[in-house]
Amino acid sequence: MKTVYLAAGALGALSLTCLAFASGATDDALWRQARQFYQPIRMPAVPAKGPKAAQVKLGRMLFHDPRLSRSGIISCNTCHNLARYGTDNLPTSLGHGFVPGPRNSPSVFNAALHTRQFWDGRARDVEEQALGPILNPKEMAMPASDQVIERIVSIPEYVALFRQAFPGQKDPVNYRNVGVAIGAFERMLLTPSRFDRYLAGDRKALTAREKRGLKVFLDTGCVSCHAGPAIGGMVFQKFVKPGEDPERADVGRYAVTKDPKDRYVFKAYSLRNVARTYPYLHDGSVWDLAEVVRIMAEVQHNKTLSRSEIADIVAFLNSLTGDVPAVARELPILPPSRLNTPRPSM
Amino acid sequence: MKTVYLAAGALGALSLTCLAFASGATDDALWRQARQFYQPIRMPAVPAKGPKAAQVKLGRMLFHDPRLSRSGIISCNTCHNLARYGTDNLPTSLGHGFVPGPRNSPSVFNAALHTRQFWDGRARDVEEQALGPILNPKEMAMPASDQVIERIVSIPEYVALFRQAFPGQKDPVNYRNVGVAIGAFERMLLTPSRFDRYLAGDRKALTAREKRGLKVFLDTGCVSCHAGPAIGGMVFQKFVKPGEDPERADVGRYAVTKDPKDRYVFKAYSLRNVARTYPYLHDGSVWDLAEVVRIMAEVQHNKTLSRSEIADIVAFLNSLTGDVPAVARELPILPPSRLNTPRPSM
Repeated sequence: MKTVYLAAGALGALSLTCLAFASGATDDALWRQARQFYQPIRMPAVPAKGPKAAQVKLGRMLFHDPRLSRSGIISCNTCHNLARYGTDNLPTSLGHGFVPGPRNSPSVFNAALHTRQFWDGRARDVEEQALGPILNPKEMAMPASDQVIERIVSIPEYVALFRQAFPGQKDPVNYRNVGVAIGAFERMLLTPSRFDRYLAGDRKALTAREKRGLKVFLDTGCVSCHAGPAIGGMVFQKFVKPGEDPERADVGRYAVTKDPKDRYVFKAYSLRNVARTYPYLHDGSVWDLAEVVRIMAEVQHNKTLSRSEIADIVAFLNSLTGDVPAVARELPILPPSRLNTPRPSM
Repeated sequence: MKTVYLAAGALGALSLTCLAFASGATDDALWRQARQFYQPIRMPAVPAKGPKAAQVKLGRMLFHDPRLSRSGIISCNTCHNLARYGTDNLPTSLGHGFVPGPRNSPSVFNAALHTRQFWDGRARDVEEQALGPILNPKEMAMPASDQVIERIVSIPEYVALFRQAFPGQKDPVNYRNVGVAIGAFERMLLTPSRFDRYLAGDRKALTAREKRGLKVFLDTGCVSCHAGPAIGGMVFQKFVKPGEDPERADVGRYAVTKDPKDRYVFKAYSLRNVARTYPYLHDGSVWDLAEVVRIMAEVQHNKTLSRSEIADIVAFLNSLTGDVPAVARELPILPPSRLNTPRPSM
């Protein structure tokens, strides 16, 4: 599959020249080329009533609730800050004890569009992903899921919301449903951007420069990994940073599958809102989007892009920044703990 | 002044008996008694345009921005979580390095109504208060205000907002204005409650039990310290916990004034939203509101309240929980750092 894109890339070098004339015909060819790979995404309708609405509401509360952490101070939103496009903009997150974790926290925006979750794909979906960091001793550090549930069931407002969100279930307050609720909220966190307007047919939604960048992006073969509705998040690919000692490098997906082919393999990052989700790479070691574009073209495609090609790609990538939806901009008010609520601990 | 209230307290024991009959006359007397001490507060109008509107908008962004901390992960909202009534609900906050600080973080809601800020009153107003934790090595740990400004001026969207918020100033992006903007936002964080509706004349806004609690509260003399629009936050008072070793106790305001009279003196806590701002006391050592009521009556007024009196006071205190205003429920979207923005550090 990849070779197909590389061939397209070779062709692209030709059509790039044509683009300098910016004719309607090449504009149209670019749009059709883009539509071969991408379909516009749309904002999901936030459910207004019923169990689904309760799940989203509950999920947003749990997402913001630091009581899901041992210390009582770290919430999902600490590392996936909705005010910062669902990231913490740190190389790697500070977890329990202020100790940096091993990998960069990816954005929760559009994460529901990925085929698997985490850099190494160890979780199937956002529902499963949400449950990992809560129990990770280096992240939110709850000792066990039972303790999470013990805190939640002590808070009557939460119990009532779980009942609304999961009607007909005998014991709705369970750890799996914590993930289902947070996942229901995260599935609302899509951010269509100007690129989606362009894909939908509005040829003026991108500037001439952004279109040049899109063309280089497609022709270079970036699309081979940054594919699908999240423009990434679907394909696993080997990546070792230039100059990195393989003995010390993060083994990536190998740790999950134990398949030697998966050594140094990571999920290709979603490029939606990429201008906001710095710093880059699985270790968050590169802050400059232009630099990461240069590295990727070189390491993954053995191509040396010119400065202006890189700048054009960066311009295109900026068109992938969408608006944060209203559902993410509303801060929930969390119900109070009760005297029997297990307290924060160190 | 205190003795006046204590005398009123003695009278109160009599009228408490009358209240058992709950006549309209005693109802009216209670209302008039309450109005001697308290006036209803109202929500301030959030400015819709002009420099003040820009200050509030900017202040909300700064309040939520973890880039005001050295690590890049602690914002004002970390310890004064608006989703949790402006507190972190921890005994004492975890600051830079996950190290607990010496005192409990008071709520930012209604803080603008206090006569001075911090437990020891070391800041004059919310504008001055906001600047303290940013530079405190145990809190947000920025090494100096210059570094705070260096981060902010590197972000063009912030510079533009400071210009709007402080028109006519030559260098609007300065540390003092950081405090002015955060203060402007905090001045919007008032939470009128049912008690204010009662004070304004709606006698049905409190239940019979809450009125009984109000009566005991006034008659016990609680009002002598928990006075003014924030029902606290105005008076400084000596407080040593029962059984606490004075040699090891927090010296309170003495550290600020060096006046021996200020040893173990703290600002009386605002009781607005007190049911939400657990745990209690300057060291956050008491989680049970009933228990802190008991302790205060005993230590400050040398009175032993009955279980039912305490329960009634707690019922009254619950009527001081207001609604979080819309201005606090909107999560701002923070502008991105630039490549020249000084990065987080440990």
